[in-house]
Amino acid sequence: MRARILKVRRWNVTSRVGFVVGLGLLFLVPGMLFATMVEWGSSTSHDEAALGLGALATLAAGALLVTFTRLDEEMPPASVFAAVAWTWIGSSVAGALPFWFSGELGSFDNALFESVSGYTATGSTVLHPIEEAGRGVLMWRQVIQWYGGMGMVVLAVTVLPFLGVGGLSLITAEAPGPTSDRLAPRVSSTARRLWALYVGFTVAVAVALLATGLSLYDAVAHAFTTASTGGFSPYDSSIGHFDSQAVEAVIIVGMLVCGASFTLHWRAVSGNPRAYGHSSEFRVYLVVILAAAALTALLNWGHDVTDLAAGIRNGVFNATTLGTSTGFSNASGANPGGDFAAWTPGAQALLLPLMVMGGMSGSTAGGLKVLRAQVMAKYMRVGLLRIKHPRVVARVKLGTMALSAPVLQRVAGLVALYAFTAFVGTMVLSMLGQDLVTSSSGAISAMSNMGPALGEAGPTSNFLVFTRPARAVLMALMLIGRLEFFAVFLVVVAAYERTRRVARVKLRR
Amino acid sequence: MRARILKVRRWNVTSRVGFVVGLGLLFLVPGMLFATMVEWGSSTSHDEAALGLGALATLAAGALLVTFTRLDEEMPPASVFAAVAWTWIGSSVAGALPFWFSGELGSFDNALFESVSGYTATGSTVLHPIEEAGRGVLMWRQVIQWYGGMGMVVLAVTVLPFLGVGGLSLITAEAPGPTSDRLAPRVSSTARRLWALYVGFTVAVAVALLATGLSLYDAVAHAFTTASTGGFSPYDSSIGHFDSQAVEAVIIVGMLVCGASFTLHWRAVSGNPRAYGHSSEFRVYLVVILAAAALTALLNWGHDVTDLAAGIRNGVFNATTLGTSTGFSNASGANPGGDFAAWTPGAQALLLPLMVMGGMSGSTAGGLKVLRAQVMAKYMRVGLLRIKHPRVVARVKLGTMALSAPVLQRVAGLVALYAFTAFVGTMVLSMLGQDLVTSSSGAISAMSNMGPALGEAGPTSNFLVFTRPARAVLMALMLIGRLEFFAVFLVVVAAYERTRRVARVKLRR
Repeated sequence: MRARILKVRRWNVTSRVGFVVGLGLLFLVPGMLFATMVEWGSSTSHDEAALGLGALATLAAGALLVTFTRLDEEMPPASVFAAVAWTWIGSSVAGALPFWFSGELGSFDNALFESVSGYTATGSTVLHPIEEAGRGVLMWRQVIQWYGGMGMVVLAVTVLPFLGVGGLSLITAEAPGPTSDRLAPRVSSTARRLWALYVGFTVAVAVALLATGLSLYDAVAHAFTTASTGGFSPYDSSIGHFDSQAVEAVIIVGMLVCGASFTLHWRAVSGNPRAYGHSSEFRVYLVVILAAAALTALLNWGHDVTDLAAGIRNGVFNATTLGTSTGFSNASGANPGGDFAAWTPGAQALLLPLMVMGGMSGSTAGGLKVLRAQVMAKYMRVGLLRIKHPRVVARVKLGTMALSAPVLQRVAGLVALYAFTAFVGTMVLSMLGQDLVTSSSGAISAMSNMGPALGEAGPTSNFLVFTRPARAVLMALMLIGRLEFFAVFLVVVAAYERTRRVARVKLRR
Repeated sequence: MRARILKVRRWNVTSRVGFVVGLGLLFLVPGMLFATMVEWGSSTSHDEAALGLGALATLAAGALLVTFTRLDEEMPPASVFAAVAWTWIGSSVAGALPFWFSGELGSFDNALFESVSGYTATGSTVLHPIEEAGRGVLMWRQVIQWYGGMGMVVLAVTVLPFLGVGGLSLITAEAPGPTSDRLAPRVSSTARRLWALYVGFTVAVAVALLATGLSLYDAVAHAFTTASTGGFSPYDSSIGHFDSQAVEAVIIVGMLVCGASFTLHWRAVSGNPRAYGHSSEFRVYLVVILAAAALTALLNWGHDVTDLAAGIRNGVFNATTLGTSTGFSNASGANPGGDFAAWTPGAQALLLPLMVMGGMSGSTAGGLKVLRAQVMAKYMRVGLLRIKHPRVVARVKLGTMALSAPVLQRVAGLVALYAFTAFVGTMVLSMLGQDLVTSSSGAISAMSNMGPALGEAGPTSNFLVFTRPARAVLMALMLIGRLEFFAVFLVVVAAYERTRRVARVKLRR
């Protein structure tokens, strides 16, 4: 009897992971209530109860966790990761509840897929046709992505660089900003500043979209998923629904801003707008997207897919949506050239590296990040140099800063992990029944938190083309990509070790 | 006038590249004469003149070069590379002459493609239908690959590791053999030993094939391209022509032996057969091929592509032919399941990593090599370890040997170069009109010196499906892959620098 009480008390006090997950859940409740109110105000559907019940369940679970657990004084890095990974997983389960209760998505696994795709700001959907769902449920989808983007900003600028994940400590030097060498005391103040920026960008996009003539609902819904570079839309044809170049222009600027480093934005807002010019990552980011836009426009024009004007419009829009891993589509009946899955193969092939690279480090975008691509490019140059001048002591530099060996190793390790996971993902997906283009682009799209893929899962299609087990694999890939691999793998390793430890304890008895 | 004489004299004495290329050309003449004799003995075609003329032209060019140039005392690494790259290019041009003179392949660019595909031991062909060409010309194709394999053995075991290309200096430690720290005095004796091994393997395969009932012509022709892991065959349906499991068994063993490290073979032959067991690379090499064979057999069986027995036969044959970058096909009318381009997508996806990885370092096989894949896997493990225990001093080890930072960087640099080139190659090929599967697998197949690809360029097809400019790109990719990137890139850099220097000198005047 005494042993059991002790056990309960220990569980009460020490679960760092439980406490953080609980906080995360409580954080979601206002968004759920907002979606419930939208549903209430809508006359076409009546899913208020489902949304409200979801909010209640999330509130209860969050409150229980926060009440009965407590943070430790110390947070070892592995713990931070575990907390982050479990928060993403817990939020995804909670976010799936309204979908499940409303029945709009059918089974729970579909609801969970939509929620995971939302929180990871991926934007792949299994809701079809989207327009048949109620306005409240659709708004909850948009809100989920906004939460996901908010989590990502903090993670990308404060947690990952501090822990040196995949060489991301680079961004501290490349663009010295609010990041500091001591994590704990600064997280909350840094987070507050970044959230202010994030909310500011969201409001700016919403206002600009309103100015183009969109309804308040449409403007807010798309502002949420532009700021988070998520890409969900309450319409099957995404941004193509509006067939408006003004709307597309606003979305393009919004995506470019939110796919760029929030650390840079912070410096610019704090009175140093020159920071953009000093960042080599920012220059490469813009040049790559522009070059891809120009090349795809020329290729599609050369192969009579579209005329040059439509080619430029679709090239800029789609290079931006893929280069920032957002995943909006501007394809419509009036503009069929926006469907990149129907582009000429050369133009499609240009999109794959964009998907892999993603946006800047320290942004809401997914993918490997421009910074890591730069580091790998330097690697190659030094490799060539070494052969020609074997005794030269070549230092890998980025801008004016020399990169240390551990940072280089971390970047290379992450790139290797990315390639390995992409290979395994492609193999598993194709074993589960997809053709090679759909499975490889599907795996890359999920890992880069992109949204649409090529082949059968293009921007005018949806992820129902994948079988049920394949969708489970895609969910895992989305989480792995979003949390930069390490967090997810560490949770798996920890779970394995715990199982082993429990088994050992049992054996001792 | 005096200046001109001086220039001529300087050219006479200092061209290391010229001398090595000349030697290489002279080396080819016996092979050309052998093919001429085969043609002479054949009653179905009369291309003796074309083959003889090719031999004469090659002899003349080689003799001129060797007479009028001389080696330097010193060979800086960049020079060694330039000499190697130019020898490959010069041999390819000379090797194309008999094809061109005979008219069997049409234009010179097709003849050159076939020759490059031969010397790089790739095995992609533009000859169609193969059987319509004369026996002598077809034998020359086989001989070319044998020369290519011979060049590769020496390059892989003596030149590349010494220069530390892509971390290949590893193999010295992983399997200490005839490699030494001083290149020049040892190259010729090491080369002689390796060539003896290579000739021995070729003879063994030929004798074994004769024992299965093949004609002398067929046995010798296929022994040449098995020893070189090249994959050319004088038949359109390749090994499938014989539809014999005994022939396939001989070829499988031959490919496995020649796709393994010649350094290991040397140690085994010198009285230490345990060397195989001590090499972690050898174990991984065998396990990967076996696992791929088992998995593809099960997948094809599960998807009703073939029954289990045929699945195992085709799985083992094709996993070996792709895992050693040979590229033979065992598909035939009686055994349609040998055509891996018609396998279930999951089984096809399993073949791509095999193509990328290739065989062991120090062998005639292409691809990234098993050793580098092992190093990258260690990289990932250390990356994960570092996150969990940030202060740990993790050393990357292979077997019992710790890998130094420069070696790691070279491996990572080469892998990055490989991935980057694969991306660019895929993009360019798809821009030149191929679908994504054909262009990406075509680029990977060419870079890994594989032979057949997937999609439209599968084992029962040929590389005429690529447009003419696309075939030029593929030729470049084959050379880049064979010479481990650095050699080719250095030649390009050197050519650029020379142009600039000449321009500068002109400006000074």
